[in-house]
Amino acid sequence: MNPAITITMNDREQRAANMFRCSTRERAMFEAGIKMGTVYHQFVGVPVDATSVDVLEKSIEKGVLVQPYVQDVKVSIDRSSFKAKNDEYSYVSLTGNMLDVEIVIKIDNIRVTAKMNFNKELNYPLMYISDVSEDIQETRF
Amino acid sequence: MNPAITITMNDREQRAANMFRCSTRERAMFEAGIKMGTVYHQFVGVPVDATSVDVLEKSIEKGVLVQPYVQDVKVSIDRSSFKAKNDEYSYVSLTGNMLDVEIVIKIDNIRVTAKMNFNKELNYPLMYISDVSEDIQETRF
Amino acid sequence: MNPAITITMNDREQRAANMFRCSTRERAMFEAGIKMGTVYHQFVGVPVDATSVDVLEKSIEKGVLVQPYVQDVKVSIDRSSFKAKNDEYSYVSLTGNMLDVEIVIKIDNIRVTAKMNFNKELNYPLMYISDVSEDIQETRF
Amino acid sequence: MNPAITITMNDREQRAANMFRCSTRERAMFEAGIKMGTVYHQFVGVPVDATSVDVLEKSIEKGVLVQPYVQDVKVSIDRSSFKAKNDEYSYVSLTGNMLDVEIVIKIDNIRVTAKMNFNKELNYPLMYISDVSEDIQETRF
Repeated sequence: MNPAITITMNDREQRAANMFRCSTRERAMFEAGIKMGTVYHQFVGVPVDATSVDVLEKSIEKGVLVQPYVQDVKVSIDRSSFKAKNDEYSYVSLTGNMLDVEIVIKIDNIRVTAKMNFNKELNYPLMYISDVSEDIQETRF
Repeated sequence: MNPAITITMNDREQRAANMFRCSTRERAMFEAGIKMGTVYHQFVGVPVDATSVDVLEKSIEKGVLVQPYVQDVKVSIDRSSFKAKNDEYSYVSLTGNMLDVEIVIKIDNIRVTAKMNFNKELNYPLMYISDVSEDIQETRF
Repeated sequence: MNPAITITMNDREQRAANMFRCSTRERAMFEAGIKMGTVYHQFVGVPVDATSVDVLEKSIEKGVLVQPYVQDVKVSIDRSSFKAKNDEYSYVSLTGNMLDVEIVIKIDNIRVTAKMNFNKELNYPLMYISDVSEDIQETRF
Repeated sequence: MNPAITITMNDREQRAANMFRCSTRERAMFEAGIKMGTVYHQFVGVPVDATSVDVLEKSIEKGVLVQPYVQDVKVSIDRSSFKAKNDEYSYVSLTGNMLDVEIVIKIDNIRVTAKMNFNKELNYPLMYISDVSEDIQETRF
């Protein structure tokens, strides 16, 4: 169905690709959505404060990067709700509203960028597609 | 950007739609991916046995249905790994391999069906787009 | 180590019990804590609204009940933050502050009740032990 | 109820302590259980491979350390199920069976050590109390 994909995909990847009833471009959107759902629903609830936030950001990024077709990812957690360490209860649980995420999916020659961040007008941590680009297909002889 | 959408969307939905740099059809793919990521990463790990599996399936379905643009969802959990209740340890934790999920996303006139199920050849719980359809747009006068 | 336990426990339960370097009463506290951590960290983040909250409460309860040594559990989710269904974004993500939970652990003749609810003075969803009782040990001949 | 605690606890900690209907020692068991439940139910499901496992271990440890009364924590993830990076699907989801965890809780003069690791005889990732010690109380004048 997607002949261009056979150039770079191995057997397992080709098998997976064959399951999709849509274009590579549309699949890239789907893969981007999966990763956004992963970030939100895997990590919301993690206890976090100023001493742990750097490694948590890194850990979310690495967790996304190991998933299929992720080329790049950047996670920033809003530190403005952190409190000074006064006692045993001076930490927060990660919420979706604290997350600022950018993920780049690359399948074959398609590159999709998705973002999640808190949208004040919606009062909602919106996930959306911020960019799509299609590289000129390299010809193979 | 997507004039057809203005017919049925309210203000907040239109604001969200305006953030997307892609077609409605592509957005529907993205939304489907988000929901699949939600099912997997929110519910994997839930303790489950024969006494709780029905309500867990229902709960996952309801949790997906409240999310944006979900028209339909069906969740089936594989009961073959359940054990008889012999003692306090006769239960399992939900894994991705036990999940069989079908989600239908509907945005405007686009309907996308996504599935997740364990793919034996890949030895992997694959999420994929199984169908896309485009209703003939109703004209408004 | 805990001879009283051998009366009612089977092999696997006895093996597990043997790993503990504390009294049955202390173990019951530990088991109560595990279940509270389960409720919070498994379910915080679930999308929820008025149409799904009943089944979510039931699902959390059932998920806890299948775990070891849980005799009873009651989960109530605060509905005051729910909004009317106006559009696709009229739902919330479950937070710890919305949870009101009571769990009863029973091991042998020890009964421990633990609670979690939002403590306004602490501005924190506190988990604590609200009651412990010790049944008069039935003698076996 | 627990006069010894007032020496080192601040107001918020004392308020929390007052909610407990048990000894400090028993509370320490409860707190240990909460943290074990956190590790399991927050992080099971995280995508992981050889490139991300170090930071994931660190992130789990830091997430536990910010919680109340944690003095020390060590998390080791079993790497034996990792595969070589052959394609986009060469990673796994973290399971409870892969976790080896040790957590030390310290409240006042009580120190409780809890462990979680896969118990082959039980075929179960058992969480248990491996040690309790009570420091000689420093007297204050």
